Amino acid sequence: MMKDIGIGLLGLGTVGSGVARVLRDKASSLAEQAGASLVLKKVLERDITKPRALKLEPRMLVNHIEEVITDPKVDIVIEVIGGEHPAFEYIKQAITNGKHVVTANKEVIAKYGYELLSLAQKHNVDLRYEASVGSGIPLISPFQQDLAANDISAIYAILNGTTNYILTQMSQEGLDFSLALKQAQELGYAEANPANDIEGIDAAYKLAILSSLAFHTAVKPQDIYCEGVSRLQVSDFRYAKEFGYAIKLLAIAKRVDKAIELRVHPVFIPEDSQLAKVNGVYNAIQVEGDLAGKLVFYGQGAGALPASSAIIADVLTIARNICHGVTSYPKVELNQKLVVKPMTNIKTRYYFRLNVADRPGVLAQISKVLGDNSISISSVIQKESNPISQTAVIVIMTHPAEEKAVQKALGEIRQLTMVKEISNFIRVEG
Amino acid sequence: MMKDIGIGLLGLGTVGSGVARVLRDKASSLAEQAGASLVLKKVLERDITKPRALKLEPRMLVNHIEEVITDPKVDIVIEVIGGEHPAFEYIKQAITNGKHVVTANKEVIAKYGYELLSLAQKHNVDLRYEASVGSGIPLISPFQQDLAANDISAIYAILNGTTNYILTQMSQEGLDFSLALKQAQELGYAEANPANDIEGIDAAYKLAILSSLAFHTAVKPQDIYCEGVSRLQVSDFRYAKEFGYAIKLLAIAKRVDKAIELRVHPVFIPEDSQLAKVNGVYNAIQVEGDLAGKLVFYGQGAGALPASSAIIADVLTIARNICHGVTSYPKVELNQKLVVKPMTNIKTRYYFRLNVADRPGVLAQISKVLGDNSISISSVIQKESNPISQTAVIVIMTHPAEEKAVQKALGEIRQLTMVKEISNFIRVEG
Repeated sequence: MMKDIGIGLLGLGTVGSGVARVLRDKASSLAEQAGASLVLKKVLERDITKPRALKLEPRMLVNHIEEVITDPKVDIVIEVIGGEHPAFEYIKQAITNGKHVVTANKEVIAKYGYELLSLAQKHNVDLRYEASVGSGIPLISPFQQDLAANDISAIYAILNGTTNYILTQMSQEGLDFSLALKQAQELGYAEANPANDIEGIDAAYKLAILSSLAFHTAVKPQDIYCEGVSRLQVSDFRYAKEFGYAIKLLAIAKRVDKAIELRVHPVFIPEDSQLAKVNGVYNAIQVEGDLAGKLVFYGQGAGALPASSAIIADVLTIARNICHGVTSYPKVELNQKLVVKPMTNIKTRYYFRLNVADRPGVLAQISKVLGDNSISISSVIQKESNPISQTAVIVIMTHPAEEKAVQKALGEIRQLTMVKEISNFIRVEG
Repeated sequence: MMKDIGIGLLGLGTVGSGVARVLRDKASSLAEQAGASLVLKKVLERDITKPRALKLEPRMLVNHIEEVITDPKVDIVIEVIGGEHPAFEYIKQAITNGKHVVTANKEVIAKYGYELLSLAQKHNVDLRYEASVGSGIPLISPFQQDLAANDISAIYAILNGTTNYILTQMSQEGLDFSLALKQAQELGYAEANPANDIEGIDAAYKLAILSSLAFHTAVKPQDIYCEGVSRLQVSDFRYAKEFGYAIKLLAIAKRVDKAIELRVHPVFIPEDSQLAKVNGVYNAIQVEGDLAGKLVFYGQGAGALPASSAIIADVLTIARNICHGVTSYPKVELNQKLVVKPMTNIKTRYYFRLNVADRPGVLAQISKVLGDNSISISSVIQKESNPISQTAVIVIMTHPAEEKAVQKALGEIRQLTMVKEISNFIRVEG
């Protein structure tokens, strides 16, 4: 007879229900692959009386974490509550009680990953989190395993489907930001409170996880410079196209000697690059290794089914180890002590869009400020003269310049009386 | 003191030298990750007196397989000789002698994978082959692990960089096939005898490996319908563009109920699809799973460094298992008995290019033949009248039709006196 491996599920929202359904619907094929039956034993849900589409045995539903983590029949705890608290405490308690843990929680792993992995190691249990970044796109295990021989030099990634959907609508349909956001909310791609997505915080959590793996160094979310997409306007996309670029919210991690750059912000990228072609709610992660070269992983970065794909894969890995009698626990490899480069020292090219008085000499003044700050211009277009307001739009692309110099120059340009407004400035990569 | 794990290397060509270099140059970081030193003990090379750029201790070089596989200090054998014989026999002997094996050999794995994996299981050793498909692109382990919970419905893949380079040059530079091939040879992308690449045989080996993993069924190379790229002409690319398509050599595996379609041939794919945008020597593999949805993996499909990335990753996995005292061996999961659908029953859309007499009624005759065979036309263009030869070109796109009916119709069209030549016909996907 086949051994049972007991599963405790924390959370029965969209992802939790998806996981429960897959465990039920694919029971026999999963058992065959695991070498044991994966049996849902306990499900933690705040309101266990709430009517729900997914039918579960009532005795399975519990509303106290202790009932899950002290159940000797539970071998693996799946955490899909999301958010920092109480998920972090629950995971900790589960590990301390000797349970293997599979989580989809980017915030907890980004903030407490090292602590939890060390705890898991101490308690001889596994902690897996494939679903926390890119959902069903294999990323954590490729970094841990397939790319292990590589020195990673850079990650460029579209890690947030919500903002990528919004930017795609702005670019392709000419919708302005608020309208594109509203559409994303109506389609269920964006939350009622979209701050985490549109401010780049969600992407920063995921970048912290990936860059810790890639560079074997402890990266915290607060190490990552973070700028959202709400400042972008349709005209920026129009100018980007004119210069041969697309605009994407990228999460970027680059290694330069003993330092790493870590940042999430809108970026001009060449329109013929792989990432420029990623549209809608899709995610894509470009990794550059010294051996493998440039790799791109592309897929759905959210949704109950893609998350279940990654979560169940993690469960299967743990189940196989249990069946083989292997005490597998995560190896914590944060032996590199890399410094995070301050944002002011970053060097990139820039796009500026300025609203200026439509008078002779204005470009000369702006060029002088840039020149005085050692910023050289690669191209400039002046257009959209408005005869009523007597203003014009100047768009400038620069050669690589240091962030510090650029910010200083922008401050000085803002003081010029002929400059009505610095409408936008966006960094350029590639 | 750290344990030594001994490596035996079979073959010291481009890939073998790359692997030896990485083992030497990254020794300390690999040791840290493996938990043991990975030490090259023996290198099998036909001519051990040949001068070479890579300096190895002379006593390491041997020219008899027995010296590698009977060496008690060798734990893992890396096979990078390539080709069917003697690589197959060597792998078999290594396994029988209780050595773990890592191979990059697509031909051997495609033809004898099941046999070798079963043998490895019997001898309690591991057999890993991540480098055999897509080189440094993680594929084998994502299929075995990350996608394990998915029912895979389809694979569409660009698996041969040489042909993709040739097709890119034909499409972008308007080079004809023989010139593009010559260029690929000069750049070292194509062999002096390019048959395996341009006939699609190389891609078929790789598809056999991937589809065995995806569908848990034994797929042999001879199960795969295979058609190369040498029939393609520059005008086909021009018409493809006119219709909004790109032409790629795709390896396709699709599951339809209890049957699978397996084929490698040139395909029209929509120019805005992810695969259409893969240019040059790059590979890309699109996988469709019921949970993960559509995933695409993109990267360099060849070269010494990308191959080393995959090979060393496999070595690290085995080394970690040895260090943990785990007897890991491959689980052979070919429990699905799926039937390969005969090519004549495949249903796709078609592109035809015909050279016809420039006279009234010719299109009517052709349309009648198609209609009689239940093939309906979705669009047609007639152009390039040649006043001297009094011929014209007719290009037809059809709705989905059965291969059998299409071949019958083409036979009948060939008999029409007004049709000078069926210049080409290419299947259309997506």
